[in-house]
Amino acid sequence: MAKDWTSSGVDLHLELDPAGGRRDALERALRDAIRSGRLGPGAVVPSTRALAAQLGVSRGTVTAAYDQLIAEGYLTARQGAATRVAETRSAETRSADPTKPTKPTEPMRPTEPARERPVPAPPGGPVWAGSWATAGTVAHDLRPGRPDLGTFPAAAWLRSTRRVLTAAGPEAHALSDPRGRPELRDALAGYLRRVRGVDADPARIVVTSGYAQGLGLLARVLGDAGTSAVAMEEPGHPYHRMIVARAGPRVVPLPVDGLGARTDLPVDAGAAVLTPAHQYPSGGTLAPDRRRAAAAWARDTGGLVVEDDYDGEFRYDRQPVGSLQGTAPGHVVYAGTASKTLAPALRLAWLVLPAALVEPVAEAKRLADAHTPSLGQLVLADLITGHAYDRHVRAARLRYRRRRDELVGALRRRAPHVRVQGVAAGLHALVLLPDDGPGEAEIMARAAARGLALQPLGEFWQCPDGRPPGLVVGYSTPLRSGYAAALDALCSVLRYKA
Amino acid sequence: MAKDWTSSGVDLHLELDPAGGRRDALERALRDAIRSGRLGPGAVVPSTRALAAQLGVSRGTVTAAYDQLIAEGYLTARQGAATRVAETRSAETRSADPTKPTKPTEPMRPTEPARERPVPAPPGGPVWAGSWATAGTVAHDLRPGRPDLGTFPAAAWLRSTRRVLTAAGPEAHALSDPRGRPELRDALAGYLRRVRGVDADPARIVVTSGYAQGLGLLARVLGDAGTSAVAMEEPGHPYHRMIVARAGPRVVPLPVDGLGARTDLPVDAGAAVLTPAHQYPSGGTLAPDRRRAAAAWARDTGGLVVEDDYDGEFRYDRQPVGSLQGTAPGHVVYAGTASKTLAPALRLAWLVLPAALVEPVAEAKRLADAHTPSLGQLVLADLITGHAYDRHVRAARLRYRRRRDELVGALRRRAPHVRVQGVAAGLHALVLLPDDGPGEAEIMARAAARGLALQPLGEFWQCPDGRPPGLVVGYSTPLRSGYAAALDALCSVLRYKA
Repeated sequence: MAKDWTSSGVDLHLELDPAGGRRDALERALRDAIRSGRLGPGAVVPSTRALAAQLGVSRGTVTAAYDQLIAEGYLTARQGAATRVAETRSAETRSADPTKPTKPTEPMRPTEPARERPVPAPPGGPVWAGSWATAGTVAHDLRPGRPDLGTFPAAAWLRSTRRVLTAAGPEAHALSDPRGRPELRDALAGYLRRVRGVDADPARIVVTSGYAQGLGLLARVLGDAGTSAVAMEEPGHPYHRMIVARAGPRVVPLPVDGLGARTDLPVDAGAAVLTPAHQYPSGGTLAPDRRRAAAAWARDTGGLVVEDDYDGEFRYDRQPVGSLQGTAPGHVVYAGTASKTLAPALRLAWLVLPAALVEPVAEAKRLADAHTPSLGQLVLADLITGHAYDRHVRAARLRYRRRRDELVGALRRRAPHVRVQGVAAGLHALVLLPDDGPGEAEIMARAAARGLALQPLGEFWQCPDGRPPGLVVGYSTPLRSGYAAALDALCSVLRYKA
Repeated sequence: MAKDWTSSGVDLHLELDPAGGRRDALERALRDAIRSGRLGPGAVVPSTRALAAQLGVSRGTVTAAYDQLIAEGYLTARQGAATRVAETRSAETRSADPTKPTKPTEPMRPTEPARERPVPAPPGGPVWAGSWATAGTVAHDLRPGRPDLGTFPAAAWLRSTRRVLTAAGPEAHALSDPRGRPELRDALAGYLRRVRGVDADPARIVVTSGYAQGLGLLARVLGDAGTSAVAMEEPGHPYHRMIVARAGPRVVPLPVDGLGARTDLPVDAGAAVLTPAHQYPSGGTLAPDRRRAAAAWARDTGGLVVEDDYDGEFRYDRQPVGSLQGTAPGHVVYAGTASKTLAPALRLAWLVLPAALVEPVAEAKRLADAHTPSLGQLVLADLITGHAYDRHVRAARLRYRRRRDELVGALRRRAPHVRVQGVAAGLHALVLLPDDGPGEAEIMARAAARGLALQPLGEFWQCPDGRPPGLVVGYSTPLRSGYAAALDALCSVLRYKA
């Protein structure tokens, strides 16, 4: 059915796809209109009552569709004001507002423009042993990078395994498409469109054994195609830098300030890896101008943006920040993972690729390990389509938000000299230490003495000299029963005096 | 306890480790004695009665230990004759006997000595689509490379999954050792020692996501360490050649004749990938002299042998051929997989490495994908330690042997002009076509018309010109219910006249 929509200065011909439910069709039509620019930034949309009457659907249907698009960052709503199309398709306009308390009150020290630096050796031992671990026994673990593993949904996983194994024909046990099982790619396409505003098509998804593998395959494909350098955020994840460098391309640092990666500067690389929703590890959100600059850079230079959306499901204080990929799907690879929502040991992640990259990345995956194990993929697909995945993520978001509040509260009371950043989302906080207090080495030594495992910010810099001292505190790792004690240890270790 | 053992001209001081059961201790002591050369090839071992009396154990214990070592190929027994230490630690002395019917009655045409050839492009589309598939619908699938997927032990897998998830602490869901879960490496070490005579230590095992990944990681590590060429069997698996070449080293062909890979010729490469138990695809067993030559080459040149034991569990007519690795563990990488015993979609395989390679291969694995998904590893470990894995393999061996017999019988009756090779083991047979009958192209065209998927031998050669025409027939793929019809189609397609 096609409806004309004239209201609030917006002229719009809205095509509702008759397949599927009305709410889905309305959401799709609105998304398409916003993406295509037919509904411009800041445009007021009709009241739910008016639109319901016009389309001949219930008001509840329109309200639900608006709520979904608000959650995805396409629309914004304020108490007592009209609902509008978001600026740059998300709520980031507000995240760039320096008066908001969760926003860094001043930019991190600006760094130099991107230029090549050697990739450092791995920082100590292998990651599984906790290269950044304090020596001795770990009594409390506040290192970042993993979810609360005590809440892994084992019962749901087992139920889905039974369902999948019961339904599976012999073909489920055979070698399959290197892109991954069609069941999972279908489920992911729907989920990512709905929750993250990704322009996702099952044919353009490649399931990988963790984000690390996806990044390595991409870097190899880019290197083979002539890309000699990849820009990566500074500070950023040293493991990811190593993976790219091992695949071939050089890693050039892309400085990060309080507005996110400096995509406004010239990027001297064929690709850039960004964490737009929640910069890792500093925790900021890429500002709207910077998002536009990243997309424009990719379009103008033929460069590729890799959007590492490692914890996009966990946003607490503002509306979700939609994916950058949704604004420039031909130039951005969207990368998501189950490592934070379920468990890293599952080794399940996914890339949503521009069409031209599907074949080379799938071939690289085939030569790497044929495909990701099928059973885990089928179980995850079952969890997503049965909504157990959504339920788990929602419950986890509440738990993490509560932990975040406890962390921020404890630090405010007991360590008021530190500055806490990046806590609007995700599973970690950046704790900046005052210049005149104990530094990273002193704090790490105190932590080791208490059996508290921490990760200093210094490990995230390619060039740590002269950087602000800090800690990257993961608040999701301790079991619930040990969280208060871990916070107590942290506050004690952070004390201003020796 | 230590016992002196003097019998049948063999002087031996046998150390029985008091830990574990007596049978285990006796087996270990015997293996060590044979491996170390203290018990030489052909040496007669004492009667079970004499040894039992000497060691103060039951005769049944000694009989069980002898049976195990016979199964592993360390000892040989013939009706009415004394039990002896096998020549080259396995039953291959007999497999090289040209009067045995399962042995090729004449060598395959000798090929040229190893020299470099370019690695060809992939033979058609991606492997999951069946690049070698006949056009049109597949009614019968006799392509090699996968087990009977209709017998995947779903109930046992589900039971073990429940057990594992119930027992798992949070740590089971965290990132772990890139070598793989300790539970699986422990289980594999015991299993491989027992069943394949591998010198296996959990610390030297790296679990990989399929053999393909393991081969790629090894090739990359060797390339990084300066190995510029890897010798691979000709004929051999084109997918494996592509994986090695993509990792860096050149692939040089290692010719295969009726006695297996020509390890007696100079090997101009830093490493050689062999399939000693059952050459892929020609099906022969590497002759004892060739095994010795391979080990001597590795020792003398510092080269590395990769032993691809892809179907070592499935041996029908002779005693199992023990692993080559067991004879030269410092120079051979043993590679095994669950792809043939359970299902390729599990993507579970393992490397047993010389000590010096553990660290670099584990680091390559870490940078590739951190580690293989934990849950599948824990389930496989549970299946092995609970003996469900052994039971499944035993039952599968009986089924495949019956299929093999049906295939050989049908071809003898209905296509007596073809020659069948390599059927003493594994899940496939080499069917050589007569020079004066229809060639591969003609047979493939006939097969396509009947919806029969086959793989021509020509696809396994780097240089197919002038090679004998043939087919590699996988007899494990059709479901039980469709097997007779598949054989009927094959015999009809192989008819001598047009």
